[in-house]
Amino acid sequence: MDNSLILVRLEGRSYDIAINHDQASGLADFVRRRAPGHLAIVIADASVSGFAGLCAQVIAGAGLRIEMTTLSGQEGLKSLAQASALYDRLADWKADRQTLVVAIGGGVIGDLAGFVAATFARGIPFLIIPTTLLAMVDSSVGGKVAINHRRGKNLIGAFHQPVGVWIDLSVLDTLPDREYRCGLAEVVKYGAAIDAELFAYLESHVDALKARDLKSVAAVVNWCCRLKASVVERDERDTSGERAALNYGHTFAHAVETMSGYGSWRHGEAVAMGMECAAGLAQRMGLLAPGEMMTERQSRLLSGLDLPIRLPPMKADELIDVMASDKKAQSGAMRFVLPRRVGTVELTAQVSRNDLASVLRDKGATGSSGH
Amino acid sequence: MDNSLILVRLEGRSYDIAINHDQASGLADFVRRRAPGHLAIVIADASVSGFAGLCAQVIAGAGLRIEMTTLSGQEGLKSLAQASALYDRLADWKADRQTLVVAIGGGVIGDLAGFVAATFARGIPFLIIPTTLLAMVDSSVGGKVAINHRRGKNLIGAFHQPVGVWIDLSVLDTLPDREYRCGLAEVVKYGAAIDAELFAYLESHVDALKARDLKSVAAVVNWCCRLKASVVERDERDTSGERAALNYGHTFAHAVETMSGYGSWRHGEAVAMGMECAAGLAQRMGLLAPGEMMTERQSRLLSGLDLPIRLPPMKADELIDVMASDKKAQSGAMRFVLPRRVGTVELTAQVSRNDLASVLRDKGATGSSGH
Repeated sequence: MDNSLILVRLEGRSYDIAINHDQASGLADFVRRRAPGHLAIVIADASVSGFAGLCAQVIAGAGLRIEMTTLSGQEGLKSLAQASALYDRLADWKADRQTLVVAIGGGVIGDLAGFVAATFARGIPFLIIPTTLLAMVDSSVGGKVAINHRRGKNLIGAFHQPVGVWIDLSVLDTLPDREYRCGLAEVVKYGAAIDAELFAYLESHVDALKARDLKSVAAVVNWCCRLKASVVERDERDTSGERAALNYGHTFAHAVETMSGYGSWRHGEAVAMGMECAAGLAQRMGLLAPGEMMTERQSRLLSGLDLPIRLPPMKADELIDVMASDKKAQSGAMRFVLPRRVGTVELTAQVSRNDLASVLRDKGATGSSGH
Repeated sequence: MDNSLILVRLEGRSYDIAINHDQASGLADFVRRRAPGHLAIVIADASVSGFAGLCAQVIAGAGLRIEMTTLSGQEGLKSLAQASALYDRLADWKADRQTLVVAIGGGVIGDLAGFVAATFARGIPFLIIPTTLLAMVDSSVGGKVAINHRRGKNLIGAFHQPVGVWIDLSVLDTLPDREYRCGLAEVVKYGAAIDAELFAYLESHVDALKARDLKSVAAVVNWCCRLKASVVERDERDTSGERAALNYGHTFAHAVETMSGYGSWRHGEAVAMGMECAAGLAQRMGLLAPGEMMTERQSRLLSGLDLPIRLPPMKADELIDVMASDKKAQSGAMRFVLPRRVGTVELTAQVSRNDLASVLRDKGATGSSGH
């Protein structure tokens, strides 16, 4: 495959996303050009420590002093306690404003290391080497970094753009099936929310994607990164509503994750369930363009990719309460990203609790009838 | 006195500093115009809870829902644990991205509340009502927010500009002497580091300033806010070196504060000592313009304002080690802001440990001769 480079244009904060296959040699140059100083601190997911060690070796070959720490765990890692421990490590290693933080792992590592980089010494540069499909297509691009807090997922965070994103598709070869599927859920999100052409491509490449056919995977990663870059360029701080489209399914997903305690359900799985809820809600509210079969097509695609399309048996009322306290809620009003047709969504705050409860129950939630 | 309004010009992040005397009525309009939503959360220093309560009442009169929390303590408040507790309060009160955080207090409250505002939901607006002279002339303007960490003062932080700064000089009437003097130390810093005319004004108004003569105090607060605004406009992120001039005395000061555990010495007192060390170092290194009597004039002015000009009996070597780990150090090299003449400083990394140790001992530090 051809290597490609996607530029995210953000005035003084522009950066490249490099997409490669098994090209560690290029990494040395990529990092050297983006490291302002002589020290790089690698924060890596323990599950990819072999790959991370290789990256660290290559970066060291670029003339940088390397310090490295590996972490294990899922969403629980994204805590103030973990951030605090990392601040200590950075201070021990005499990190300063010229130090480059390199995050190697999935979205959890990127979010945590990015938050630490955003807040250490009022912000130091960081570079991401995503190792999951989900991180490649979504969380690595756009500068949203965060940790969780008792009251909500990603409640504490910042906008801190990376100085570069280095994607090596070969690392996907060893990604567990479940993680890989979770990435596909976010890929479906791009299609369903903002690009009908991508959605159709996915429908016609279900088997190839499940088989991790390199050509199809590369096409999809490229496609999603370009879409994400374009949205982020127009709405970096998530204020105009454009970036909100990428939260399709996420209000529901965050509620599922919060209620299940971050861990029983992976983010991508929760997003799949969330998109099903959002589409169901749009259908119930009569928002869907007739004749498009949006709900049927989405369910078929998600099922085809082995993603869950039903909620676990959670109480509908509790899910709604959690959603009402989501940080994207405004003055207590829940805002939902709902589809109009494949590839087109809109933001609405006009959702009745009654409709919401009905849809949640349709999708598998439990509880008495709404009020 | 006339009320005045100083604009800090920062593209999309411009804001006003309003300087008034006993004009709480104007506060209602000032806040209403800057609050994007319907909720304001007041984080106030318990030592000014009467004034804060009055402000809260005025803001409530502007039609905003008010929630308020008061905190006691000095630098120890600027901790991750305290930030975490505030995140909980904000979540309890259903703060969202339209919520305005109002910090009422000195630099500690501004730094802490500002850090929480910078990181809650990836950043929400905040407004500062400084109640100490130090906060009025320095820490409230410029968007530097931070908390302390085991390894250093202000180690964890962000750049997060306020949406407005409301200064009511009448609150200084009840400021304890020691706090008032600490503010004067930062005022002297502006004169010594960047404005010889201000320095001369201070020399001729020592008695008026000590007596808190309103006209002199108002002149000085205005003067310093204009200087700070101008520096911040040219170097918002502290990258060009211009803003570094305002750190005159601060590398030494932070080391004194770190070694004494934040508390035995107030920041302003440590800055006074630090300026004396910096001027002494410049003299020893032959950097001072001849005939200016910089060190004599500075010592006389600081003493006249009842500020300390000698270090406490700390070990010189330990002070140096702490300075070497300051977050402004680059790759382990200490950088110092040293005077050339009254009103002119420069940034240098060319300082020998030997000179440094000698000057520290001259200024009161203990320890064997340098190496």
